[in-house]
Amino acid sequence: MRAVDIIIKKRDGILLSDQELQDFLSNYLEGKVTDYQMSAFLMAVYLNGLSEGELKTLTKTMRDSGQLIDLEGVTKFLIDKHSTGGVGDKTSIALAPLLATFGIGTAKMSGKGLGHTGGTLDKFDSIPGFTFPDSEEAMVKTIEHTGVGIMGQTDNIVPLDKKLYALRDVTGTVSSFPLIASSIMSKKLAVRSDGIILDVKVGDGAFMKTLEDAQKLANIMKNIGEMFGRTVKVVLSGMEQPLGNAVGNGLEIYEAVQSLKGEGPKDFEVLITTITGIALVQKGDVKTVEEGIALAEAKLKTGEAVNVLRDFVADCGGDASYIENPEKFLSAPHQLELKAKETGCISELMAEKVGIAAMMLGAGRETKEDKIDHAVGIVLNKKIGDQVFEGDTLATLYYREENQKLSEANELLESAYKFSSESIQKPNIILDIQ
Amino acid sequence: MRAVDIIIKKRDGILLSDQELQDFLSNYLEGKVTDYQMSAFLMAVYLNGLSEGELKTLTKTMRDSGQLIDLEGVTKFLIDKHSTGGVGDKTSIALAPLLATFGIGTAKMSGKGLGHTGGTLDKFDSIPGFTFPDSEEAMVKTIEHTGVGIMGQTDNIVPLDKKLYALRDVTGTVSSFPLIASSIMSKKLAVRSDGIILDVKVGDGAFMKTLEDAQKLANIMKNIGEMFGRTVKVVLSGMEQPLGNAVGNGLEIYEAVQSLKGEGPKDFEVLITTITGIALVQKGDVKTVEEGIALAEAKLKTGEAVNVLRDFVADCGGDASYIENPEKFLSAPHQLELKAKETGCISELMAEKVGIAAMMLGAGRETKEDKIDHAVGIVLNKKIGDQVFEGDTLATLYYREENQKLSEANELLESAYKFSSESIQKPNIILDIQ
Repeated sequence: MRAVDIIIKKRDGILLSDQELQDFLSNYLEGKVTDYQMSAFLMAVYLNGLSEGELKTLTKTMRDSGQLIDLEGVTKFLIDKHSTGGVGDKTSIALAPLLATFGIGTAKMSGKGLGHTGGTLDKFDSIPGFTFPDSEEAMVKTIEHTGVGIMGQTDNIVPLDKKLYALRDVTGTVSSFPLIASSIMSKKLAVRSDGIILDVKVGDGAFMKTLEDAQKLANIMKNIGEMFGRTVKVVLSGMEQPLGNAVGNGLEIYEAVQSLKGEGPKDFEVLITTITGIALVQKGDVKTVEEGIALAEAKLKTGEAVNVLRDFVADCGGDASYIENPEKFLSAPHQLELKAKETGCISELMAEKVGIAAMMLGAGRETKEDKIDHAVGIVLNKKIGDQVFEGDTLATLYYREENQKLSEANELLESAYKFSSESIQKPNIILDIQ
Repeated sequence: MRAVDIIIKKRDGILLSDQELQDFLSNYLEGKVTDYQMSAFLMAVYLNGLSEGELKTLTKTMRDSGQLIDLEGVTKFLIDKHSTGGVGDKTSIALAPLLATFGIGTAKMSGKGLGHTGGTLDKFDSIPGFTFPDSEEAMVKTIEHTGVGIMGQTDNIVPLDKKLYALRDVTGTVSSFPLIASSIMSKKLAVRSDGIILDVKVGDGAFMKTLEDAQKLANIMKNIGEMFGRTVKVVLSGMEQPLGNAVGNGLEIYEAVQSLKGEGPKDFEVLITTITGIALVQKGDVKTVEEGIALAEAKLKTGEAVNVLRDFVADCGGDASYIENPEKFLSAPHQLELKAKETGCISELMAEKVGIAAMMLGAGRETKEDKIDHAVGIVLNKKIGDQVFEGDTLATLYYREENQKLSEANELLESAYKFSSESIQKPNIILDIQ
C-alpha cells in the first residue's frame, strides 16, 4: 500500500491494520516514507486519534525499532520510574538510592535537558569526574553493586520514537495523548523491569496543565502497559509550583542528598516516599502503599540511602566527597536575595517562570549547543501557602556574574510570585494514584 | 511567529490573522517553512477547514506569488473557462472557437495531462508543426486575431499553488474543498478576464463523485470570485460516463471539429452551447442563457467556428489541413471492435475504466516521462441509455500494436459497460447551473 493511501485512511478515520501501520512506520524509519508524509499522518492522528489496536502497534513498532535492554545478570527486583518532567525535578537522584536500600534496583535511561533546567545527566555532571555507565554491561554492574542504574540515553533504543519526536516537535503534533503515551511507554517497554512507576506532573510548570488531562494520559499509559503484560502504576503529582526548593543542577543534587538524610523539603519527601511505597507493594514486601511509605520515611531518618548514592557516584568515577559534604555543591560565587515587597500569603509561584529564570542564570540550555553552569540556580525560600512579610527573603539566586541577565532573571522570578491577603492552603504534592 | 505556532493554531481551530497566514505561506515558498511543516498544516486545514478570511488570504497569496497575466492589448470581451477535468474532455478545443464567432476572446493556460488521457496541450500536439504561444505577447496576438488564446502553463504564474499541489498530492490532502477551490481560483484570478465560467464535472470519472459535493465546491469557488469582485458562473456537468464518444488525443480533436460543424455527439454539443449561452449573458449580448444557447446552436450549423480553429492552428504553426480534413486524425494503424456479448440497455459506462483503457493503448501517461501516442484511443459507439443487441459494436479501439496491453485494455473496456434488461434513460449532461 502506498504511503499516501495510509495517510488518507487515517485522515478519513478508517482503521489501519497492524501490517499497514507497521509497514508505514518501518518504511519511515528506513527513509522510504518521507518526513512530509509522516507529519501529515501525525496531524491526522492528532485530530482523529488512534484505536487501541493502532496504539499497540505503534508502541510495539517503536519498541522493536532498536535495541532491547534486557539487563542480563541483574538479580534484583527492578523498578523503572519515569517522570514527565518539570521544574526542580530531582526525583530520580533521590529515589534510586532510597529504593536500593530496600533491595530494589532501578534501570533508567536519562537524557540531557533542553529548556528550563538540566536533565538528570546534567545534574550528575555537577560532580567532578563523574561519567555515566555507557553500556548495558556497565549498568548491570552498578545495579548489582549499588542498586542504582542510570545510564546516558543511547541512540540504539527506540530510534523510531526519537525520529518521530523530533518531527512532532516542529510540526505541532507533540501534545497528542496517544502519541505522548506511546512514546513514553515504548521506552519503558524496551527496558526490562518488574514494575513501572510513572510520575505524571500536573500544573503550570508541566506538560499536563489539568488533573483531568493527566488522568487521561495516565489511563492510556496504563492500558498500553496492560496490553504488553506489564505492571504500571501512575502517580499524578503537582507541578503548579517547582518541586522542592532548589532549581539548578548542583543545587538540586544538594537538595536530593539533604532529602536522603530526612532534611529535605516536605513536598519532595512525600513524593519520593510515596513512590517508594508503591514500589514496595509491587515487589510484594508490603500490602498497602501506606505501609510502604512508613518504611520509606523511617529509612530516610537513618541516612542509609546517602551511602548508596555515594557508592554509585564512586562507581561512576565521581568525587564521592561531594556526597559526603554536599555543601560543595553550593559553589556559585555570588548570591542575591529576592525580598518580598508586600505582606501576604503566597497564592501562586509559577513553575515555568522560575525555570526560565534559572535558565537565564545559566542552569539550562536555550539551544542544544549551550553549556550549562552547574553551580548557578535558584533556591526558593517561600512557596505557595507561606505567610510572608515585606522584606522577607522569597528566594535566593545563585549566580556567577552581575549582568543584564541577572537582573532580568531576578525580575522574572519576582513576577512568578503572587500574593493574597487571605490564607492559602499548601497544595498537595500527590494528586492521585492510579 | 514561529511556523510551529501557526500549525498549532490551525490544529486547535484558532483563526489565523491575514498577516500570520500570509507570512507562513510566503515563508514556505521561500523555503523557510519546510515541507514537513506545511504538510502538517495542510492536514489540519483538511480536517478543520478554513474561515472565509483565511480562504481569501490563501487565494490572494497564491495569486500574488507569481506573474499576473493582464493581457494588455486585448480589446475583446474575455472569458476564462475552466473544467475540473474528466475522461474525453475536449471542451476547450471546441468552445474557444465557438465563443470567438461571437467576438468573445478566451485566455487559458493549459497543462500536460498526467493520468488517463492527455491534457489540452497533448491533444493539440496531434497536429504536425503546432506549438503553443509561449509568451503573453504571443497569446495577445492570437486572441486579437482569432479570438482563441491557449498557452502552455508557465512556471511563473501561481508558483505557490504548484508547490502546494505537489505536496498535497503525496500527503493525502488533495480532496479538501477549500484547498481545491483556492487552487483553481488563484489561477483564474492571476489572469485577466471579464467573466469566469467553471465547468465542474460530477460522477464516477470525475474528482467530485456526487452532485452535492460538486455544488459545495461550486459555492466556495463562486464565493472566492465574489470576494475578488469577479463574475463567476458554474456549470455542473455529468461525468458518470465519458464526455462525447472519443477518448484519445487526435480522436478528441477530430470529435471537436465535427462538433463545430454540428456533427458531434449530442451531450458534447449541449455542453458547449450551454457554456456559450452563459458567456453571451455575461457579455450582455442576450438576457437569458436559453437565448444564448439558441444562438450557439444556430452558429454550429454554419460551420463558421471550424474556420476560427483552422486560423488558430495556422497561427500556431500547425498544419491547418488537419482541421480542413479532420479524417487525418484517424491515423491509428489498426482498429478493433468490441462486440456486445449480451442484449440489453446500457446502464453504466464507467468513465475511469474507459480512461485507463485508453491510457493502456498509449493515449495517456502513467509517469511524467511517458510519451503519448496521439493516434490511439477509444471511440464509444454505445453509451448509457442505448439499446444494444448481442454482437453490436460497443466501442472501437484505435491501436498501434497487437500486444498484451491491447487485450488488457479491451478487457477493461468491456468491464466498463453494464447492461440492464429494463430501459434506461440517457443521463443529462447539464446537472445544474449556479
